[in-house]
Amino acid sequence: MAEEQPSCHTAEERMQLAIRLARLNIEHRTGGPFGAAVFNMATGDLVSAGVNLVVRSSCSMAHAEMIAISSAQQKMGTFDLGAAGVPHFELVSSSEPCAMCFGALPWSGIRHLVCGARDEDARAIGFDEGPKHPHWIKELEKRGISVEIDVCRSRAIEVLRYYSSHEGLIYNARQG
Amino acid sequence: MAEEQPSCHTAEERMQLAIRLARLNIEHRTGGPFGAAVFNMATGDLVSAGVNLVVRSSCSMAHAEMIAISSAQQKMGTFDLGAAGVPHFELVSSSEPCAMCFGALPWSGIRHLVCGARDEDARAIGFDEGPKHPHWIKELEKRGISVEIDVCRSRAIEVLRYYSSHEGLIYNARQG
Repeated sequence: MAEEQPSCHTAEERMQLAIRLARLNIEHRTGGPFGAAVFNMATGDLVSAGVNLVVRSSCSMAHAEMIAISSAQQKMGTFDLGAAGVPHFELVSSSEPCAMCFGALPWSGIRHLVCGARDEDARAIGFDEGPKHPHWIKELEKRGISVEIDVCRSRAIEVLRYYSSHEGLIYNARQG
Repeated sequence: MAEEQPSCHTAEERMQLAIRLARLNIEHRTGGPFGAAVFNMATGDLVSAGVNLVVRSSCSMAHAEMIAISSAQQKMGTFDLGAAGVPHFELVSSSEPCAMCFGALPWSGIRHLVCGARDEDARAIGFDEGPKHPHWIKELEKRGISVEIDVCRSRAIEVLRYYSSHEGLIYNARQG
């Protein structure tokens, strides 16, 4: 018997879930204000979810996107979510990806990226996206990954501000 | 009683270990031809080691550098290997980092990066470093991470060629 999968049929519904994950992560004090999820593009079914777990897991790579992607790969039993015969998957992230998560996307097999808040919105509360490629959207598109930005951006910004106003820990890269 | 730690006092000794890890990973058919290790910069002590485990772990992020860094963070009990009061650490990698591993470095707290083979050497056997920042060394240096390249490069290339001649699986990002 197949498990029942929550489905989200619009990009906005899917983003609301990613934003809700970010908010829950703040409320439960489990990590930074970032949430992400992987969806089956044909059905809208939720495949996996992730929140930022950097501090709690003592792992600087435990960004929401990395957790969501690796969980989806575990579930599908493949390192390549873009392999032949596998459904197409999209990653929905409450904020645009940092340099690392951007770099992880082409290896993951993810076909489409949906972002809420922009890099500058995360920077406005003190986070830093790291040394991301200056033409990151074009670089993803060159590799067959389409990108949609500003989906529910204002609600995504609200969550970042909520974290900031609750004195959430801001950790960053060395600035030299 | 402290565990005995293997120590490597020169960059070349440290690189030989990373290259040996890459070779063992090929010989044992456990993954791609890449090895990495984290060392305490003051003592030369080995802190952690990593090999590419992408296929075996069904995880596209399981690059040698990511395994070595996350293992070092687990061992030290912190997401920030560059935190105050923590020794300085360097990452030694048998090949230059891909776009993702490059992006992971500033978050990791690693202070120094030592590379063997160049991106073009990995490309020569069919691997791809992904959409890495065009000025990646400068970007790391801006964030306080010094970079040393071409350490034992010819031996690092030998291992890549050994993999290629043994028909090791070459997996890559979508090319669009």
